[in-house]
Amino acid sequence: MYIPSFEDMLAARERVKPYVHRTPVLTSEFINELTGADLFFKCENFQKAGVFKVRGACNAVFGLSDDMLEKGVATHSSGNHALSLSYAAGRRGIPCYVVMPRTAPQAKKDAVRGYGGIITECEPSTSSREAVFAKVQAETGAEFVHPYNDPRVIAGQGTCSAELIEQVENLDIVIAPIGGGGMISGTCLTLSNLAPEIKIIAAEPEQADDAARSFKAGYIIADDAPVTVADGLKVPLKDLTWHFVSKHVTDILTASESEIIDAMKLIWKRMKIVMEPSSAVPLAIILKNRDIFAGKRVGIIITGGNVDLDSLPWNGDIK
Amino acid sequence: MYIPSFEDMLAARERVKPYVHRTPVLTSEFINELTGADLFFKCENFQKAGVFKVRGACNAVFGLSDDMLEKGVATHSSGNHALSLSYAAGRRGIPCYVVMPRTAPQAKKDAVRGYGGIITECEPSTSSREAVFAKVQAETGAEFVHPYNDPRVIAGQGTCSAELIEQVENLDIVIAPIGGGGMISGTCLTLSNLAPEIKIIAAEPEQADDAARSFKAGYIIADDAPVTVADGLKVPLKDLTWHFVSKHVTDILTASESEIIDAMKLIWKRMKIVMEPSSAVPLAIILKNRDIFAGKRVGIIITGGNVDLDSLPWNGDIK
Repeated sequence: MYIPSFEDMLAARERVKPYVHRTPVLTSEFINELTGADLFFKCENFQKAGVFKVRGACNAVFGLSDDMLEKGVATHSSGNHALSLSYAAGRRGIPCYVVMPRTAPQAKKDAVRGYGGIITECEPSTSSREAVFAKVQAETGAEFVHPYNDPRVIAGQGTCSAELIEQVENLDIVIAPIGGGGMISGTCLTLSNLAPEIKIIAAEPEQADDAARSFKAGYIIADDAPVTVADGLKVPLKDLTWHFVSKHVTDILTASESEIIDAMKLIWKRMKIVMEPSSAVPLAIILKNRDIFAGKRVGIIITGGNVDLDSLPWNGDIK
Repeated sequence: MYIPSFEDMLAARERVKPYVHRTPVLTSEFINELTGADLFFKCENFQKAGVFKVRGACNAVFGLSDDMLEKGVATHSSGNHALSLSYAAGRRGIPCYVVMPRTAPQAKKDAVRGYGGIITECEPSTSSREAVFAKVQAETGAEFVHPYNDPRVIAGQGTCSAELIEQVENLDIVIAPIGGGGMISGTCLTLSNLAPEIKIIAAEPEQADDAARSFKAGYIIADDAPVTVADGLKVPLKDLTWHFVSKHVTDILTASESEIIDAMKLIWKRMKIVMEPSSAVPLAIILKNRDIFAGKRVGIIITGGNVDLDSLPWNGDIK
């Protein structure tokens, strides 16, 4: 297990700079009054491909050695990582192979293809996915880029909080959603070096609270297919992300489904931005834990904005 | 009829500066490729109260003479102007009286009250509205601020394009939605003085095309209660806005309901911003008139972001 270093993050920053946005930080007087805190929303929903994951994907793709370029990269995510890796590969002009269940929504397949990804379909089961992915990798020789448990990806995600602390001074806390832990690990990598006084809080859905339970237990607990509206946060921690979470995170707090949906709607309504349910978990937690956040300067990572506009959670399609 | 002067706009700029945002200008590579134009979206959806109208309202309220302060201001809008005037009055600490139909959605009443507006309800008819408004004005002595046919309001709206041309150089065209013509008139006032080479195009729903027909006919045509998803654009031109429209606008173009909804969804999906159907009319027109816009640098006024998240037009609730 190679643990990415602070130097890896610095190198990532230079490497990805031409391909990612320095996203804006927004504020809302209304939400500040509601929470009693000074909140700074780092808007990765405005990022290329609509999600922070393009940082890690670009770092992996633009760090590839020349002899790997023809073979390209591969992954088996069906969500934001597939989009991000396809975008990054497209910018470098190399192939990106994506294994996706044939049952994945057409819109997701179209989006991956829109960024130039080459899709191979599998059956919607872990065994089929693994078998098909192994075959694709054997045939193409492409480099596997894991969605989060990869030092190149974590170093890339760390560039987000490096920007944030340049944009906002004297933060007391940074809070970000946690699924597999890629964003949180990158945040730990950067802040533990550049601003160790800032507390790092991870935000997780109550219904997919494996990271919170892992944090309390002191070892990784992985749930099987948790159900939550925050669909980017269903995956478990892995060894590399556990390293950062267990070492640098102050706490992992949770919010219920209705708290997440209410917070999401509040952000859309008051801040006029489109963002994913996963990105609303931090505000949901701030709203219910006034004792922790009131009076503090808090950075919130709005991780992404790729949401299905035809099926918004407050319309009752998801529970 | 007092026609606001360029000096009135300059005075408005200084007057409203402490109370309104200098809103950002966003771009989208994807939408640029789609249209073949360079589009610059001036995001008044991020404005105070979520709408450009706060500029005109603040200019009217902060321009009031001291002897009017106790009496306050009044209007009979039930939409964005009521919100904006309530916000402005609240900032100056004076009363704002709003006459609204008792059938107006509770959310709109709550929003006006949230900004400090004092609501008097009327029956949902023009005669009741006028009678109730006359009574409120007689009792309070408050100053009537018309939503658009008011020189103070037009001078205030003109501050938006003054910012835009500082933020983006060498625009060929500015396009904005037209309802009563307040924003377009302010745009004419500013650009005819500061950048007369920029063409001004007004964007109107096909189903509420009274301004386009007025423009062709050479005199004001007012429709009775047109039906369109772009609910901010149903009102007719009046003498003061007609003055600017007839004198400075290059053309008024229209888009169908489905074109407006498609353009709105495209902006939400790709730019990750929440904006009103009215604000999508310009992009709908750019998409269908490639011959006019391709190769041009085009400023688009995204007029506001106050949309009912429970009833989005692509969910089929509105036709």
